[in-house]
Amino acid sequence: MKPTELTLLGHSENRLPASPDEATLETFPNCRPGRRFWITLDCPEFSSLCPVTGQPDTAHLVIRYVPGERCVETKSLKFYLASFRNLPAFNEEIVNRVLDDLITAMSPLEIVVSGKFSPRGGIQLTAEARYPEA
Amino acid sequence: MKPTELTLLGHSENRLPASPDEATLETFPNCRPGRRFWITLDCPEFSSLCPVTGQPDTAHLVIRYVPGERCVETKSLKFYLASFRNLPAFNEEIVNRVLDDLITAMSPLEIVVSGKFSPRGGIQLTAEARYPEA
Amino acid sequence: MKPTELTLLGHSENRLPASPDEATLETFPNCRPGRRFWITLDCPEFSSLCPVTGQPDTAHLVIRYVPGERCVETKSLKFYLASFRNLPAFNEEIVNRVLDDLITAMSPLEIVVSGKFSPRGGIQLTAEARYPEA
Amino acid sequence: MKPTELTLLGHSENRLPASPDEATLETFPNCRPGRRFWITLDCPEFSSLCPVTGQPDTAHLVIRYVPGERCVETKSLKFYLASFRNLPAFNEEIVNRVLDDLITAMSPLEIVVSGKFSPRGGIQLTAEARYPEA
Amino acid sequence: MKPTELTLLGHSENRLPASPDEATLETFPNCRPGRRFWITLDCPEFSSLCPVTGQPDTAHLVIRYVPGERCVETKSLKFYLASFRNLPAFNEEIVNRVLDDLITAMSPLEIVVSGKFSPRGGIQLTAEARYPEA
Amino acid sequence: MKPTELTLLGHSENRLPASPDEATLETFPNCRPGRRFWITLDCPEFSSLCPVTGQPDTAHLVIRYVPGERCVETKSLKFYLASFRNLPAFNEEIVNRVLDDLITAMSPLEIVVSGKFSPRGGIQLTAEARYPEA
Amino acid sequence: MKPTELTLLGHSENRLPASPDEATLETFPNCRPGRRFWITLDCPEFSSLCPVTGQPDTAHLVIRYVPGERCVETKSLKFYLASFRNLPAFNEEIVNRVLDDLITAMSPLEIVVSGKFSPRGGIQLTAEARYPEA
Amino acid sequence: MKPTELTLLGHSENRLPASPDEATLETFPNCRPGRRFWITLDCPEFSSLCPVTGQPDTAHLVIRYVPGERCVETKSLKFYLASFRNLPAFNEEIVNRVLDDLITAMSPLEIVVSGKFSPRGGIQLTAEARYPEA
Amino acid sequence: MKPTELTLLGHSENRLPASPDEATLETFPNCRPGRRFWITLDCPEFSSLCPVTGQPDTAHLVIRYVPGERCVETKSLKFYLASFRNLPAFNEEIVNRVLDDLITAMSPLEIVVSGKFSPRGGIQLTAEARYPEA
Amino acid sequence: MKPTELTLLGHSENRLPASPDEATLETFPNCRPGRRFWITLDCPEFSSLCPVTGQPDTAHLVIRYVPGERCVETKSLKFYLASFRNLPAFNEEIVNRVLDDLITAMSPLEIVVSGKFSPRGGIQLTAEARYPEA
Ligand SMILES: [Ca+2]
Ligand SMILES: [Ca+2]
Ligand SMILES: [Ca+2]
Ligand SMILES: [Ca+2]
Ligand SMILES: [Ca+2]
Ligand SMILES: [Ca+2]
Ligand SMILES: [Ca+2]
Ligand SMILES: [Ca+2]
Ligand SMILES: [Ca+2]
Ligand SMILES: [Ca+2]
Ligand SMILES: [Ca+2]
Ligand SMILES: [Ca+2]
Ligand SMILES: [Ca+2]
Ligand SMILES: [Ca+2]
Ligand SMILES: [Ca+2]
Ligand SMILES: [Ca+2]
Repeated sequence: MKPTELTLLGHSENRLPASPDEATLETFPNCRPGRRFWITLDCPEFSSLCPVTGQPDTAHLVIRYVPGERCVETKSLKFYLASFRNLPAFNEEIVNRVLDDLITAMSPLEIVVSGKFSPRGGIQLTAEARYPEA
Repeated sequence: MKPTELTLLGHSENRLPASPDEATLETFPNCRPGRRFWITLDCPEFSSLCPVTGQPDTAHLVIRYVPGERCVETKSLKFYLASFRNLPAFNEEIVNRVLDDLITAMSPLEIVVSGKFSPRGGIQLTAEARYPEA
Repeated sequence: MKPTELTLLGHSENRLPASPDEATLETFPNCRPGRRFWITLDCPEFSSLCPVTGQPDTAHLVIRYVPGERCVETKSLKFYLASFRNLPAFNEEIVNRVLDDLITAMSPLEIVVSGKFSPRGGIQLTAEARYPEA
Repeated sequence: MKPTELTLLGHSENRLPASPDEATLETFPNCRPGRRFWITLDCPEFSSLCPVTGQPDTAHLVIRYVPGERCVETKSLKFYLASFRNLPAFNEEIVNRVLDDLITAMSPLEIVVSGKFSPRGGIQLTAEARYPEA
Repeated sequence: MKPTELTLLGHSENRLPASPDEATLETFPNCRPGRRFWITLDCPEFSSLCPVTGQPDTAHLVIRYVPGERCVETKSLKFYLASFRNLPAFNEEIVNRVLDDLITAMSPLEIVVSGKFSPRGGIQLTAEARYPEA
Repeated sequence: MKPTELTLLGHSENRLPASPDEATLETFPNCRPGRRFWITLDCPEFSSLCPVTGQPDTAHLVIRYVPGERCVETKSLKFYLASFRNLPAFNEEIVNRVLDDLITAMSPLEIVVSGKFSPRGGIQLTAEARYPEA
Repeated sequence: MKPTELTLLGHSENRLPASPDEATLETFPNCRPGRRFWITLDCPEFSSLCPVTGQPDTAHLVIRYVPGERCVETKSLKFYLASFRNLPAFNEEIVNRVLDDLITAMSPLEIVVSGKFSPRGGIQLTAEARYPEA
Repeated sequence: MKPTELTLLGHSENRLPASPDEATLETFPNCRPGRRFWITLDCPEFSSLCPVTGQPDTAHLVIRYVPGERCVETKSLKFYLASFRNLPAFNEEIVNRVLDDLITAMSPLEIVVSGKFSPRGGIQLTAEARYPEA
Repeated sequence: MKPTELTLLGHSENRLPASPDEATLETFPNCRPGRRFWITLDCPEFSSLCPVTGQPDTAHLVIRYVPGERCVETKSLKFYLASFRNLPAFNEEIVNRVLDDLITAMSPLEIVVSGKFSPRGGIQLTAEARYPEA
Repeated sequence: MKPTELTLLGHSENRLPASPDEATLETFPNCRPGRRFWITLDCPEFSSLCPVTGQPDTAHLVIRYVPGERCVETKSLKFYLASFRNLPAFNEEIVNRVLDDLITAMSPLEIVVSGKFSPRGGIQLTAEARYPEA
C-alpha cells in the first residue's frame, strides 16, 4: 500500500505534535466573561500507549468547564489530544495531566476531566478529576 | 430542478428573517402567572454557519424556563431560530445570545439554554448557560 | 365503513364526557393515610385540539402525587383525560388545569403534572407544574 | 377554562373533517415517475374511537409506498388521518381502510400500511396490510 | 453580535456553493476497481428549504454505493450537500437528485440514497431511491 | 510527565510493528476443519492516520469469516491492527487491505471485513468488502 | 388486608376460567376476508405454573396470524390466556397448545406463536411454533 | 393437555402459599451488622388479581433496604411474593403491605418498595413507599 | 469469611461436574414430535478458562434448535454448561463441542450454537456453528 | 476435547489463586496524592459459587474510589476477583469482603463497591457498600 501520491494533497496541518510537551493549547476570549456557564467537550477518539505493554490504549475523554477570561480553541485541543498518541502513560496520569494543562492554558473557574478507558483483562477503568476540588 | 411552479403554493409565511436582529420573539400572557412552573422547548433542528470555515454547523438546542408574566410563542421562536441559519457565529455565542434574547423578550423568572453541536474533528461541544446564575 | 352493527355491542361506558367540566374525577380512601408515599400515573395517550389551528395535539402526561385522605380512581381519570379530546386548549393550560382539577378532587399532600407534547414545526414543548411550589 | 378569545387567532385551517368520507387525500405529480422508489410516512399520533366502549384508541401508523404517477400530499394526509378522530372503528378496519383509500387516491405501484395500537387489557394489537399481496 | 473580527480567521474554505448546480462532486480512483464492495456515507446534518413555506427542512441522508472506477471524495460531498441549504426543494426531489448527481459524478455499480426528514405536522417522511432498480 | 520508571515494568511485548508490512498474522489449526462455521472478531479500537491531514482516524472494525484449515490468532491480530496506527491510509484501502491480508494468512472459505470510521465534517464513512464476492 | 368491601365493586367480568379447557376463544368476521394481511397480538403478561416446582412461570407471548374468515376477539383472548394462570404446564406445551387452540378457533391462513419465558437458573427459554410449517 | 405424568417429577417445593398470610419471610443474620449498606431486590414477575374485575394484574416490584441485624432470604421472598398470585388487591395496598411485612420480618434500618404495574386502559400506575419517611 | 455454617443449608444439588465428560445432558419427550418448531435457550452466564493464560473467560451462549423426538432438559443443561467452569478450552472448541454434545444427546432436526466471548486485548470474538450446515 | 498441546503455550500467568486469602492486591503510588479524584473499575465478569446449591453465581461488580497514597493495580485486581471463582459465598458477603480487602490494601479516602448478581428464581439482587458510610 503506497499512499504517497495522495499525501501530496496533504497541507500544512500535516504535523502531529510528538508529545503533549510539544503541543500548544490555544485560547480565545470568552464571549460572556461575566456569566458563569458550562462548556462540555466530548472527545471519544483519544488514544495513548500502555506504559507496561507498549500497546495502544483508547479512551473516551469528556472535559467540562466554566470559562474564566478565555476558552480553549477546539482545533488546538484536537492537536493536543493527538499528541498523546505515541506517549506511554498510565490512565490516571492522562486524566490528571489533561486537567493540569487546561488549567494552565485558560484558568477556568471550574473544570472536570474524565477518561473512560477501553477494557483490559475484563476490567474497564474510568478516572475523573476536577478543579477546584468538591 | 425547477420547483418554481410549486412555490406558487407558498403563502405569507414565506419569509425567513435574515438574522436574529430582524426576527421578533412574540409572547403571550402566562396562563398561571402566580405559579412557578417549567416549560421546556426542545429544538433539534438548529443550524448556523461556522465563522471560521463558512460551513454549516448544526445543533440540538434545549430551552427550559419558568415564565413570569409572559410566555414565548413557539411559532415566532421557530422563525427566530431559523434566522441564525446564514449567520456566522461561534457555538458559545449562540447559546448566550439565545439566552439573552429570551430574557429580553419575556423576562422569565428562571431560564436555561443548552446547545449540543454536531462533532467536528472528533470533538463535540455542548454549551449551557442560565439565568439567574446558580 | 359502517360499524353500526358492531357498536350494538357497546355498553353503558359508551359516553365520552364532552369536556373536563362535564367529567368527574372519582376518588377512593387512601389505604395508608398516615404514610407519605408516591403514586405515579403514566398517561401516554392524551389528546386535545390546538386552539389556533383546530388540529389534534397529542401528549404524554405524567402525574405524580403523595395522597392525602383520598386517591384518584384510574378509570375516572381515563374518562376525565378523554374529555379534553375535542377541547381547544393551549399546552400550558392543559398541564395547569389537570393539576388544579386533581388538587380539587383529592387534596393531595404533593403533586406534579407534566405534559410532553408532540413536536410541531420542529419544536417539542413540555410543561411541568407542581403543588406546593418547590 | 375559556380559550374562546385565543381561538380568534385561528385561521382557515380550523376545520377538522368529521369523518374519512368527508376528507380529501390530495396528490401531486411524482417527480420521477419512471423510477421505482419508496416513500415512508411515519404517523405516530393517530387516534380513533373504540366501537365497543366509545373510548379513544391511539395508534402509530406507518405508510410505505412506491408512487405511480402521483404522490399523496402530506398536509391533506394529516387532515385525512385526523378525520378518524371521532369515528368508532375496529383496529383491523382502520388499517385496511387507510390502505384502500390511499390506493384509490394515488394508484401506487406498491403500498404497505401498518397500525400499532396502544395496549388494552394487557394485549397490544398491530395490523399490517399491503397491495399488491405478497 | 459582531463576529467580524473572528471571521478574519476564516480561510479559503469560506465559500458555500449557492446551489447544487454550482457545486462539484470530486472523485478519486477506486483502490480496488475489480472488487465489488460497499461504501456507506452517513450524513445526519442535511438541510434545505421547504418550497411551500420557505422554512428550513432538515434530514438525515444515507448514501450506500458499490464503486465502479471512481469514489466520491467526502469533502466535496460535504460542500455539495451544503449547497442545498438555501434551495427550496421537495423531499422526494432531494433524494432523487442526490442519486442522479452521484450517478453522473462517479458511475457507481450500485447506489442507494435515503433521506429521513424531520417531522412536520405529526408526520415524518422518508424517501429512498436506488440504481439500478431492484 | 516522566513515566520512565514505570516503563521498566514493560516486558517483551513492548514492540509495536511499525507498519502492516512488518506485522505477522499468526494462525492455528481450525478445530473443526470439516464444518462450515462463522467466527466474528469485533475490534472497536482501530486507529490510523488520515493521508491528507496527517491527523488520527479511528474506526470500529468487524471481521467475520468461515475458517478453512486455519484460524487467525487474536493476539497477533491485535498487533497487526495496531501496526496501522502511524500509517497514512484511506478508509477504503484499510478495509480492503485487511481483507486481503487475512485471505493470504489463513485462506478462509468466506470472509467479510467492515470498518465504521468516526465522522469527519459531519459525514461518517463505512466500508465493507467480502470474499468471495456475493 | 381485607379487600372484601372493594370487590363489591366487581361486576360480571369477575370470573377467571379455571383452565384453558373452560375458556372460550370468541371470534368475529374478518373485515377483509379476501385480503391476506397480518395481525400481531403482543401479550407480555402471560403466567402459568411450573409443573416440576409448582412455582409461577411468566412469559411474553406474541401471536401473529393472517386471518381467514374470522379474527380472534382480544377480550376473549385475554380470558383464555389468563386461564393458564394456575395450570402446571411445560413451556413448550404452552406455545404449542396456544397455537393449536387458535387454529381450532379461527382457522387462520397462517399463524406463528412465540413465548419468551423468564430466566430460571441462568437460562432463558423461548419457543416458537407456526402453521403451516415453513 | 395432561401434564400429570410430568408433575411426578415435582418435589417438596410444590406448594404455593394461598395468600401472604400463609407465607413466611425467612431471614438470616446480616454479615456486616455494623455497616450501613444497601441491598436491592429486583422482582419483575409479580402478579396479583384486580379486586374489581378479578383479572390478573402484573407488576415489576423493586425492594431496596439497609439491613439491620437480619436480611431477608430470597427464596422465601419468592414464595411470599407468589402468594399474592390469587389475591384480589389494589396496587397501592400491595406496595404498602410488602413494605409493612418486610419491616416486620427483618427490622431494616431503611427500606423502599416500589411497584410498577402494567398499563390498564392506557394508564400505567407506579406506587412507591418507604420507611422511615423522608 | 467462613460460610461453613451456611453451607449446612446446602442440599443434594451441591455437586458441580468436574468437566463436560462427567456431565449428563438429560432429555424428555418432545410434546409435538410431528411439528417443526424452534426452541431457543439463552445462557448469558457461561464461563471457562483460557487455555493459554489459565484465567477465566466468560461468554453469552445461545442455543437454538428444532427438536426431533426429544428435548434437552434445562436443569441438566445448566449443570452441563457449569462443567466447563474449570476447563481450559479455546472459544471455537467450546462452541463446536456444545453443538456436538447436544446433537449426540437429543438428535435435533436442526441446531445452531453461538458463543459471544468477553473482549480480550480490545478484540471480542463470537463463534457460531450449526447442524446441518446451511 | 484435548487442549493439552495448546496449553503448552501457557506461561507463568497460568495460576489462579485458590481463594481471596491466597490472592494479593498489589498497589502503586497515586500520581496525584494531593488531589481528590475518582477512579472507577467496572468488572462485568465476576463469578463465585452459591453456598447453598454449589452452582455458579455471576455478577457485575463496580468499584469506585478516591485514592489516598496508593492505587490498586488492575492486573492484580483481576487475579484477586478470579480467586472467588470456586469459593462458596453469599452475595452480600462478597461485596462487603471486596470493600474490606480494598480498604486494607490501599487505604482509599473514599470507596464504593456494588455487585449486581444475575437473577435466580425471578429475583435479582444487588448489594452496595461504601466507606466511609454516608
Ligand atoms: Ca470553542
Ligand atoms: Ca396564577
Ligand atoms: Ca407556547
Ligand atoms: Ca388507584
Ligand atoms: Ca421518472
Ligand atoms: Ca410529499
Ligand atoms: Ca480491483
Ligand atoms: Ca472517500
Ligand atoms: Ca482465535
Ligand atoms: Ca375481503
Ligand atoms: Ca381484534
Ligand atoms: Ca439474601
Ligand atoms: Ca407431534
Ligand atoms: Ca425444556
Ligand atoms: Ca498531588
Ligand atoms: Ca490502575
